[in-house]
This record gives sequence, C-alpha cells and structure tokens, in this order.
Amino acid sequence: MERNFKLTIEYDGSAFHGWQRQSSDPTIQGTIEAALGKMTRSSISLIGSGRTDAGVHATGQIANFHCDTALTPQTFIKGLNSLLPDDIVIKACLEVGDSFHARYDAKSKTYVYRICNASLPSAIGRQYSWHVRKKLDTEMMKAAIDYFVGTHDFKSFEGAGSPRSTTIRKIMAATLEAKDGATLLFTVKADGFLRFMVRNIVGTLVDVGGGRISPDDVPAILAARDRNLASATAPPHGLFLMKVEY
Amino acid sequence: MERNFKLTIEYDGSAFHGWQRQSSDPTIQGTIEAALGKMTRSSISLIGSGRTDAGVHATGQIANFHCDTALTPQTFIKGLNSLLPDDIVIKACLEVGDSFHARYDAKSKTYVYRICNASLPSAIGRQYSWHVRKKLDTEMMKAAIDYFVGTHDFKSFEGAGSPRSTTIRKIMAATLEAKDGATLLFTVKADGFLRFMVRNIVGTLVDVGGGRISPDDVPAILAARDRNLASATAPPHGLFLMKVEY
Repeated sequence: MERNFKLTIEYDGSAFHGWQRQSSDPTIQGTIEAALGKMTRSSISLIGSGRTDAGVHATGQIANFHCDTALTPQTFIKGLNSLLPDDIVIKACLEVGDSFHARYDAKSKTYVYRICNASLPSAIGRQYSWHVRKKLDTEMMKAAIDYFVGTHDFKSFEGAGSPRSTTIRKIMAATLEAKDGATLLFTVKADGFLRFMVRNIVGTLVDVGGGRISPDDVPAILAARDRNLASATAPPHGLFLMKVEY
Repeated sequence: MERNFKLTIEYDGSAFHGWQRQSSDPTIQGTIEAALGKMTRSSISLIGSGRTDAGVHATGQIANFHCDTALTPQTFIKGLNSLLPDDIVIKACLEVGDSFHARYDAKSKTYVYRICNASLPSAIGRQYSWHVRKKLDTEMMKAAIDYFVGTHDFKSFEGAGSPRSTTIRKIMAATLEAKDGATLLFTVKADGFLRFMVRNIVGTLVDVGGGRISPDDVPAILAARDRNLASATAPPHGLFLMKVEY
C-alpha cells in the first residue's frame, strides 16, 4: 500500500546547486532522492515545499514522498542520515495523510537572513552570513521593513525566471534583530515568496541602512513594479529557510 | 629599521594542516607568510603563540614578525586580508617593542571546545562542534572539571610527538556552559597546554558525562601519568584557540 511521508530537512547549501534536481550538478532534492532510492529500491520523487536557490541554506525545509514500503519513519531518519552527506540532515519524518502535498498545502514560510555588519569579516561562520562593512542604521532599516509588511505586489523584488500566476504576496511579519554585536537577523514570514524576493528585499534594506536610499522610498519602489528600481540581490549564503507552516 | 608587528588572527582550520609551515600541505603559518612575502617583497618568518593542530580553529591566535618596512599596521590589515583566503582573517595588527615574542611571552591561553549534544547532528555549523549523540550529564562533567583546575602533571592527557621540558601545567580556570539547548561550551584557561591536552580532557569529560567513568576517577588518571588511562582524543573541529594573554 502506498504511504505518504513528510520530511523536515536541514541543509548547508554551500556545496549544492540549490534544491531542484538537475542532471549534472549536485542538488539537495537529487541527493535525497538518490538516498531514498537506495533505501526503498524504487524511484522516489521528492516534493519540496519550494525550491531554494544555489547556496541558500535551510533549517526547516519540508518535503514529502509517496512510497509503497514497510519501512517506518524512524527507519527513514536513521537510514537517510547514514546515507546522506553530512551537509544534509533529516531532522524528522512523519507518516501523513495521502493528500498532504508539501508545496500546495504550505500556508506560510519563514526565512531568516543573516548579516555580519562589521568593519572586518569573520573566518568562522563566513558561510552563514553576508558581510557588510559599512555601519548600518538599524532604525532606518526597521522603518523600511514596516512598508514591506502586508499584502503588496512584489514585482519590483522578483528575480527573473520563475513561473508564477501573480506577483502579489502577503508578508505577515518581518523583524530585524541585533545579536552578538555584529550580527543582524532579518526574519520574514509570508504566504509565499517570489524568486529572490527575500534577497532583493535584503539588498534594499542594506541600501536603506547604509543611507543610499530612504525608508520612505520603499512605497514608490513597490508601486513601480520595476525590478530596476530596487537594489541589488543580496548573496545567497546569508539566507535560511527556517520554517514552513501547513 | 627593523620593526616588530603583532597580529591577531581568526581562522577556520577546516581546510588547513594546522598552524605550522609545511613544504607540501597548506597551513595557516605558511599561507600568512606567503602573503607577507608578497606585501613586503621579503622572506618573513611568522612566530605564532603556539601551534594549532590540523582542523583546529582560532578566533584569537597571536603571532609576530620582524620586518624592515615603512608599511603601517593598518596597511598590513588591509593588504593581508585582501591577499589571504577568506578562511583566514587578520583582526588586528599592532607595532610592538622589538623584544615581544608571541610564544615566549605568552602568559596564558584560553581555548573553547564546542560540543553539540543532540540525538541528531546539525548540517549548519557542523564544522564547528563535535556531535555527541548520547545525552551528557553536565553536573557530572562539572564535578570532573573541578579536578582538572590547578597545577597538575598532565602527562596522561598529552599526545605523542611534542617537545617539552615538563608535563606540568597550571589550569587557571575551566567552565562548562550550556547554550542554545544543544550546545555545550567548555572553556579552559592555562599557562600553557601540552599537545592534544584540551581534546584529551574533553574526551574524558564526555566519558564522564556519558557515565562510562566517574568524576572521582580523574585524580587517579592524572596521578598515573599514563596516556592509556585517559579517554580517546576529541576531534579537532570542536576546538577554538580564543585568546592569548601577555
């Protein structure tokens, strides 16, 4: 009888060409599917809550797969973690109802973006934050963040090349938090994200914090629906998919 | 005129064969000396406060070098950081008196060892802590730590192959701190360390925390002056040289 399993996955995206299976380059999806294939001796298709781009990390990516198997969720956790490289860890496995779909059923996602705001970079943990040399004004950044919260057309913050029916998304919450002196954590929860949306918002926030643009410019940038008005895309290695809610 | 410069160095030891220069493999000392050579067009010998072994990290390694140069400390910081790979960062550079010697003048060193004590490993930050699956009893570990503090003969906790005139060292302070749920931080300050001494102590502490040996076994292990009585060496990637005091 075919069963449906839900995985919670942590990964360090540094060495991967993103989530989505590719024929040539290593990806998270492809690597986990290969391990599932070994365990079940069948060809498994893993459905992620969404793609993450090359270099992006996750602490709480969700995926599901259907399989006719007698293996238990606990066996999948143990077996997958022993087969997978140590930059992918299966944190949880649950058997779920047949209709559960990791992408279609997602109600919200939460991302965290880490900035290291210091005159000198760090060697330790450099894989996990964007080093921004110029001292950022976090009060200005918070004022800009307030303009992003709510339901908006985020076309100005969308990267090219992702299929979608609408560019309207609802940001339910967004905060900026200083931690350990030099670290800034931007946390954003939305009903969905366009491609590069978090990284494009972060790029704009850093321009606000650095004084290149004003927080009050944000409404006009949103209204213009023009990618050229927003700032450059922040690099992938500061970004973490933290949580997917259903 | 020859001047003397003191560097504070942070490095991620993952990709290096330790501090000490080697002809074949990349090392921290060799990499920084090569960068200094490019900047000064001379052959520079860098004196570290001590060696760190392959895979060990540092946030506050200290080294000094002598050079007949007109370059300023600020120029060394900028120039070295632009020449060095991003897993080595020069955090500070000071001109010091001619007699300053990073190794001979060190009064104490502080190391931190990170343990991730959780049933499942982490993908994020796995390079920076030792994953110990079995739940550790931190109260037992603290009781064991108390036996290490003070002046002792640490021969039972010494790795082979390091030249030294005595195996007596003074541990001035040692603490164990729980952080973020799963992380345990062991911090130890001493007037000097034998080779593998911190990692051998950590191996023994983990055996105490896991119930394999009792805290009260520690005095006898110390007294025996026999490496075979202490536990296995903890892996290098949890260890950080944090501070050197002069």
